[in-house]
Amino acid sequence: MMLIDALQCGTFDRGVLQRLAAGGFTCVTPTLGFWEGTLESLDSIGRWRDMERENADVMRIVRKADDIRACEEDGKLGILLGFQNANLLEGRIRYVELFGDLGVRVVQLTYNNQNELGGSCYEEADSGITRFGREVVAEMARCGLLVDCSHTGDRTTLGAIEHCPKPIAVTHANPSSIFPHARNRSDDVLKALAQTGGVIGCAAYRNITPDWACATAKGFAEMIARTVDLAGVDHVGLGTDFSYGSDDAFRDWMRKGRWTRSVQYGAGSAARPGAVAKPEWLERPEQLGDLAEALRSTGFAEAEVAKIMGGNWLRLYETVFG
Amino acid sequence: MMLIDALQCGTFDRGVLQRLAAGGFTCVTPTLGFWEGTLESLDSIGRWRDMERENADVMRIVRKADDIRACEEDGKLGILLGFQNANLLEGRIRYVELFGDLGVRVVQLTYNNQNELGGSCYEEADSGITRFGREVVAEMARCGLLVDCSHTGDRTTLGAIEHCPKPIAVTHANPSSIFPHARNRSDDVLKALAQTGGVIGCAAYRNITPDWACATAKGFAEMIARTVDLAGVDHVGLGTDFSYGSDDAFRDWMRKGRWTRSVQYGAGSAARPGAVAKPEWLERPEQLGDLAEALRSTGFAEAEVAKIMGGNWLRLYETVFG
Repeated sequence: MMLIDALQCGTFDRGVLQRLAAGGFTCVTPTLGFWEGTLESLDSIGRWRDMERENADVMRIVRKADDIRACEEDGKLGILLGFQNANLLEGRIRYVELFGDLGVRVVQLTYNNQNELGGSCYEEADSGITRFGREVVAEMARCGLLVDCSHTGDRTTLGAIEHCPKPIAVTHANPSSIFPHARNRSDDVLKALAQTGGVIGCAAYRNITPDWACATAKGFAEMIARTVDLAGVDHVGLGTDFSYGSDDAFRDWMRKGRWTRSVQYGAGSAARPGAVAKPEWLERPEQLGDLAEALRSTGFAEAEVAKIMGGNWLRLYETVFG
Repeated sequence: MMLIDALQCGTFDRGVLQRLAAGGFTCVTPTLGFWEGTLESLDSIGRWRDMERENADVMRIVRKADDIRACEEDGKLGILLGFQNANLLEGRIRYVELFGDLGVRVVQLTYNNQNELGGSCYEEADSGITRFGREVVAEMARCGLLVDCSHTGDRTTLGAIEHCPKPIAVTHANPSSIFPHARNRSDDVLKALAQTGGVIGCAAYRNITPDWACATAKGFAEMIARTVDLAGVDHVGLGTDFSYGSDDAFRDWMRKGRWTRSVQYGAGSAARPGAVAKPEWLERPEQLGDLAEALRSTGFAEAEVAKIMGGNWLRLYETVFG
């Protein structure tokens, strides 16, 4: 069964890649950038090209659904290049095509702050999608890049769904009706996402996930079942937000970037400012495969389990990447 | 009498500088950038440093109110370095101080598009000032840079006024109650601007200025009188938006930057897509001095004329630049 995780982050090295390949992952989207501009984003792509050369026995960078199918065949880990912000464009519509040519397949419209494309889930007001944002989502669709709205505000997400000619993704969030949090998406978003063929990846990051879904794989499967009730079984997948080796400096980079000297908690809070424990059932990423059995015991049929574990992402990737 | 024009744009050369100095201008703020990022903005500052060396007999770059007073003494043209966008920061709070050290004195929060700081007057929705925008206006105040909200949306402008510990400017716009246009500012903005010690520079750009204020200096003086009715005589100055040598390519750069392949009209429209004629009374920038007499004939006392022609900007510069 194909296992696809639409969002991970932190520091990847050979050890991590080996664990993921051995753990049965068919495809993972690491985070190549949070705040990085054009040059830094090119550097990040360059590093992953080196990583691919140095670990060719374990992984390959994938660009198409067929590349992911090939990974399932030969047991290698597929790496899908994704960014959690649109800063790589530095305001240039023409860079969408160029980054697509270099293998980038997923770009989140905004990370934690408003930008030229739209509003973030953490701003006081969500502007909705801007004129440039509309151009970018149309250009991403043309060039075969997947629009991601996980940290994007609900209003901007609805605008992206409306203006993008292809389905979009919320790669790593949960329904806010299940766990109220700025980082989770509203039922309206889930409905619009599903109606247009999109997919939401359920997240296993404790700050945005109920304790009962962190405690056991069965609990997480229950949360998925409730998400399926909202979006439909063809529109729910996995986007764990699992991170590797994140220390204070990395967390500060994610939360503060270069935009502030203040204290920032990201998805946390003053009461829970730092690292949070991994879910009890997912302390190691290899355990993600255990979810299949939990989904079965929750009542999902085998074909539905396959969709949730990876099939829905594969279908969306095929639709968007062409 | 001090003559200060808080906003001009286009291509400056020795001929332009000589005309401005001979025309009695004490200080002019040229536009060093519309869409330019950090490196391009540094290039632009570098070009003005060269310009200063090559034209030391005519002009000097000014950083303080006293520098402008010195220009009045010796008849040289003061050049105040200003940007019409915050892209020079590329999201870095620390760059405010660095650009301030390099002589930048005016930064507009947004140009025609929404950015990380706030909303533009041309977006469908104005987000208001963002968290980063609040940090930037506070840092600009600390570092002695003047916040400009001429192309910024009204809501974001009100937010900037609220969050900036120093008065701010609308360097080149008119009251929208006099000439309804997205680029002009509301009476609420003018009121808040004045209450906090700010200044609006009346613009002489035909797309945002009534025909009757373009036809004669007397008409322009009338518009100023109505602006003074709204903001008070201590809070109105000049920001002509006069441009030099602007051709189609330059206009496309201003309007489209690199964010779109579509047709953009800027402050124009499909009915008036290209260049508009300069105001009949201000076909050459040297004619701006004629406004003093028109202001007198409109009923302003001599001290009031001096405030409008430059004194109000000097006071604001002194307050902000320290």
